[in-house]
Amino acid sequence: MREREVIERLRRIATAPEARGLLDDVAVLDGLVITHDSIAEGVHFLPGDPPASVGWKLVTVNLSDLAAKGATPAGALLSMTLSGDGAWESEFLTGIEHACESYGLSIIGGDTIALPGGSPRVFGLTAIGRGGANIPDRRGGQAGDCLWLVGTVGDAALGLSQLQADPKASGPLVDIYRRPIPQLGAGAVLGPHAHAMMDVSDGLLLDAQRMAGASGCAIALELERLPLSSAFVAERGGELDARLFAATGGDDYALLAALPASLDAATLSLPQGTRITRVGTMSAGEPRISLTWGGQAVEVPERLGFEHQGNHRSRISASPMADRP
Amino acid sequence: MREREVIERLRRIATAPEARGLLDDVAVLDGLVITHDSIAEGVHFLPGDPPASVGWKLVTVNLSDLAAKGATPAGALLSMTLSGDGAWESEFLTGIEHACESYGLSIIGGDTIALPGGSPRVFGLTAIGRGGANIPDRRGGQAGDCLWLVGTVGDAALGLSQLQADPKASGPLVDIYRRPIPQLGAGAVLGPHAHAMMDVSDGLLLDAQRMAGASGCAIALELERLPLSSAFVAERGGELDARLFAATGGDDYALLAALPASLDAATLSLPQGTRITRVGTMSAGEPRISLTWGGQAVEVPERLGFEHQGNHRSRISASPMADRP
Repeated sequence: MREREVIERLRRIATAPEARGLLDDVAVLDGLVITHDSIAEGVHFLPGDPPASVGWKLVTVNLSDLAAKGATPAGALLSMTLSGDGAWESEFLTGIEHACESYGLSIIGGDTIALPGGSPRVFGLTAIGRGGANIPDRRGGQAGDCLWLVGTVGDAALGLSQLQADPKASGPLVDIYRRPIPQLGAGAVLGPHAHAMMDVSDGLLLDAQRMAGASGCAIALELERLPLSSAFVAERGGELDARLFAATGGDDYALLAALPASLDAATLSLPQGTRITRVGTMSAGEPRISLTWGGQAVEVPERLGFEHQGNHRSRISASPMADRP
Repeated sequence: MREREVIERLRRIATAPEARGLLDDVAVLDGLVITHDSIAEGVHFLPGDPPASVGWKLVTVNLSDLAAKGATPAGALLSMTLSGDGAWESEFLTGIEHACESYGLSIIGGDTIALPGGSPRVFGLTAIGRGGANIPDRRGGQAGDCLWLVGTVGDAALGLSQLQADPKASGPLVDIYRRPIPQLGAGAVLGPHAHAMMDVSDGLLLDAQRMAGASGCAIALELERLPLSSAFVAERGGELDARLFAATGGDDYALLAALPASLDAATLSLPQGTRITRVGTMSAGEPRISLTWGGQAVEVPERLGFEHQGNHRSRISASPMADRP
C-alpha cells in the first residue's frame, strides 16, 4: 500500500461531512476551520536552514490554509520533537512566536516528544480558525466562473533553486521561499464571494488540477496573465519557459479563487497592496487543466507541481498523482 | 534549552485563556475540547508491536483526554508517516478505524509525510470533542474535595513488564497495555460535577502531583484504596510494594476526579460496569502528594510515574519534573 492507496483508504474511512471528502485543505467543525501540516528535516526543510525560518514557515503554511477558507486565526496546537542541546529548538520557537504574533494566532496546546538518536526533527501544527458564513470548498467551482490568483507565483521556487545552487544564497526570492506570507486579509474578503478557494502550495498547475478534479469542471489558464514579481522577472524573465517554471514551482502560498464571472475581484476592498489577477476560467468538461500562451494552446507539462523529494509530501486532502491528466 | 525550558518557553508564549496555561490536558476553543498527542516508534511503541494495536492506542489515548473533560468525540485529524511497502501502515489504519468506529470518532483531516530512509515512524492525532456546560480543568480542585478514580491502575505497567521479559507474552494485562479503553461514558457523567478532572496516563502519583500543583492544593492518597484488577492481584498481589508499582506505572487511562465531598460518586448513573473508587482527599497546603497505607504515612517514591525512555515524552500541558516534591 503506497501513498495513493493510503489516501484512498483514509478517504473511505473519512465519510463525515466535516471531512469534506478529504478533498479540501481543511476540515470544518461547528464553524471552526481546522488544518494540520507536518514538516520533517531532510524532507521539507534542510538541517542548514535557519531554525527561525522553519518555525515561521510551519505557522504560515498552516495559516495559508485558513486564508484559503476566509477564516480568522484562532488557535494552534504545536507538536515538536526535542533533540540535542535545544539551541536549534530555541531559535525555532522564536520563529513560531514571531509568526503567531504577526497574525494573531495563539498557541493553545500540543505536545513534545523525543525521537531515537539520529532521527530527523519532525514538527506538526494544527491550526484552527473561525470561518465566516461561507467557507469555500475546493469542490464548489462552477462552469462559467473566473479564476483569480492572489499574490505571485514562482518566487519561492526560484529562491529554492538559488539555494540549491549555493546554500549561502540570499535575497528577496530566498526570503520568500523561507518566509511565506499567508494571504489572510485577502482570503477574508474573498471568502463570502468564492465558489471555490484554495491555497497554491504545491504549484499552480497541480493545485488548479486539484480544484478542477474536486469541482468537476475544466480549467483553462492563460499563462501570459500569470502574476510574476519584479524580482522573478529580473532573474528569469517573463517568457513561456519562465512562466511554466513559475506555474509548476510550488511553495507560493498564493490563493486561487473561483468567483462568479459577474464579479470583478479587483473592485473589492482588498488589503492595501494586494495583487489580484484573473488567470483563467472554469467550464463544463473533463476535469483537467488546459493552457494557452497568447491565445495559442500550450502542452500541459508532465510535472504539474513541486513534489517534495519524490512525491512524498501530501495532505490527506489531496492525492498529488491521482487526478493527473 | 532542554525539555523543561522548552515547555516553560511555550508557556510564556501560550497566554490565551484557551490554552488553560498549558496546565490542562486540552485546549478549549468555542466549546470544543482539543488535544494532540504524537507517538514515535522506538519511544512510545516498539517495531514489533502489532500495528493495529498502535493505531488503536493512538486514537484511544487522545480520546482519554476528551473523556477527562467530559467531552463527546467529534472529529480527529491524523498525521502519519509512510515508509516501506505500506503493509505495516495498512494494519495500523485498521486499528485506527476500529477505535474510531468503537467510540464514534470521525477522521476529518490530516496529512501524510515520508521521512528520510531509516527514520522511525511518527504519528500524531488531533482529537476534537464537544464539551458540556462544565469542562473541568486540572486547576479547579479545591480543599475539601474527595478524589475519585475511575478504572484500575497498574495493569498496563504490569503488561509492559511482561512484554519486556518476553516479547511474545500475552494475556489480559498485555491486552490492557496495548489496547487502552478511554472512559468516555464515565467522564461525561462526572464532567458536570467535577471541580478538576484529568486522565491518569503517566502514573497515578505523577498525575496526582500535577493536579495538586495545578490546583494549588495538597493531595493525600490512601494506597489501600487503590483499585486493582483481579488479573493484577493474581500476578503481583495487593501489598504495599504492588500498590506502589501500580501507582507509578503509567498507561492506565483511568480518570482522576476531584469532586465535592458532599457527592457520593458511586451513586451517579455511571455506565454499567464502571469501577469508581474514592482514593484520597484534597486539602489546603503545599501542592504536593502524600501517601498512607492503612493509616501509616508512606514515603513518596522518587519516581512518581512512567517516563518514556528518559523522561522524553510529555504533553506541553505538563512538565513531568517541574513540580516534583
